[in-house]
Amino acid sequence: MLGKTYDQMAVGDSATFSKTITETDITLFGAISGDFNPAHMDAEYAATTKFEKRIAHGMIATSLISGLLGMKLPGAGTIYLDQYVKFTAPVYIGDTITAKVEVVEKLARNRVKMITTVSNQNGVSVLEGEANILAPRAPKL
Amino acid sequence: MLGKTYDQMAVGDSATFSKTITETDITLFGAISGDFNPAHMDAEYAATTKFEKRIAHGMIATSLISGLLGMKLPGAGTIYLDQYVKFTAPVYIGDTITAKVEVVEKLARNRVKMITTVSNQNGVSVLEGEANILAPRAPKL
Amino acid sequence: MLGKTYDQMAVGDSATFSKTITETDITLFGAISGDFNPAHMDAEYAATTKFEKRIAHGMIATSLISGLLGMKLPGAGTIYLDQYVKFTAPVYIGDTITAKVEVVEKLARNRVKMITTVSNQNGVSVLEGEANILAPRAPKL
Amino acid sequence: MLGKTYDQMAVGDSATFSKTITETDITLFGAISGDFNPAHMDAEYAATTKFEKRIAHGMIATSLISGLLGMKLPGAGTIYLDQYVKFTAPVYIGDTITAKVEVVEKLARNRVKMITTVSNQNGVSVLEGEANILAPRAPKL
Repeated sequence: MLGKTYDQMAVGDSATFSKTITETDITLFGAISGDFNPAHMDAEYAATTKFEKRIAHGMIATSLISGLLGMKLPGAGTIYLDQYVKFTAPVYIGDTITAKVEVVEKLARNRVKMITTVSNQNGVSVLEGEANILAPRAPKL
Repeated sequence: MLGKTYDQMAVGDSATFSKTITETDITLFGAISGDFNPAHMDAEYAATTKFEKRIAHGMIATSLISGLLGMKLPGAGTIYLDQYVKFTAPVYIGDTITAKVEVVEKLARNRVKMITTVSNQNGVSVLEGEANILAPRAPKL
Repeated sequence: MLGKTYDQMAVGDSATFSKTITETDITLFGAISGDFNPAHMDAEYAATTKFEKRIAHGMIATSLISGLLGMKLPGAGTIYLDQYVKFTAPVYIGDTITAKVEVVEKLARNRVKMITTVSNQNGVSVLEGEANILAPRAPKL
Repeated sequence: MLGKTYDQMAVGDSATFSKTITETDITLFGAISGDFNPAHMDAEYAATTKFEKRIAHGMIATSLISGLLGMKLPGAGTIYLDQYVKFTAPVYIGDTITAKVEVVEKLARNRVKMITTVSNQNGVSVLEGEANILAPRAPKL
């Protein structure tokens, strides 16, 4: 049940994961993070902002990258080293967002650099970034 | 109920938020992200890794920074622009981690740069990073 | 599927509901309430308090009374009018608590007064209080 | 990160916390409480009642008071002693409710009495009540 090893990955390999973002995701992210910023949690407040409606926490979109790295590319056994994310547009409740990761560089010592992006159902970029990971290795026997 | 505005923030201002990380956090983060990497979800697999036990998703520690920015410094109304995180040590179930944000630079157009760190109950750094945010503004009337 | 009507309830009628309180209950209550008081969420902090360990939110014990009124006595269709609760001892993670409601007075206009208590697996009272409810009525046809 | 101590609180001090109540809150409160009263959980049944739609559990509105006491006034370290709540109007899914706590009396031995109210986005009171708390104290060293 191991993901792709370093040797099995090539520059240009990519994978995507899509999910509709729900009010439940926002509620559960509140439980994890304690983040009850009214931009996320208060519809009356949100109506007064430039976004006009409640927006999802940026880390919810980011979490899909974590999901993609951990499940598809490279997959099970990935060790997450670092992540940069820039939030480029809001994600609203009901939006279906697609995370994409793409191998851009194979580094020394089992490290791989990935471009990470998330876009919504209209093709608008909502997140741009970059991650470094350690590729999965078979458990020591 | 607005957080600190740009004018109310000074370089060196800081805030912290602490929370014990539970198995439930991992389950809920799985629900949001779809990240079922066995390093987080499979105790048998985890026992074979160098971490020896299941570890929390790195984005769970990151989420406490989101909570801190959204609730304390600057607080309600903060707009998250970007975040860099480097995962420096594992977080285990039952660890109590403390996120800290500190203002390092006040930039143009309402932007503030923060140093963001998370450490565990033994004082070990588990995450280091940097965020840029837009300081809260009063809603337009 | 209607609970007991006013006419079907007598002074002295009682019912109980028991549940083991888990870390998950505390996490989910955080999601609903935004209450991340370190007495509930921070094991390191809690170790410095007179309670010595994390305690459940008082409203979690109270919620079992809500469950009992809504499910058993009177049951489905109950309208909750008011509730007084006094927290008499802490509830710890892993405690199994038993809520009890007892009819103490049948009031005018379909109202019923109940004594509401919660105790732990050692018989220690953790909550004492009183509720007024409107007994279930069949939906209008 | 201690909340306001007894000496830092004055009669008239107040704080508010607002949140949009979602279907997820009702589901999670069901998980905690076992309260599956059809007034909350059964849209078909709810359509036959005077409320016409599913209503949130009264304890969900009450939970925001817990959040406010534990997070803002007095904040971290608060010990909840007792709470009276009277449910004065229904809370519907999608309502944005604002809890308010106000210091009304400073009592002996670190106790503080607070008036606790919750109102909806139309300014309608949905909950009125009173709480007694122990103000935060610095942990013993």
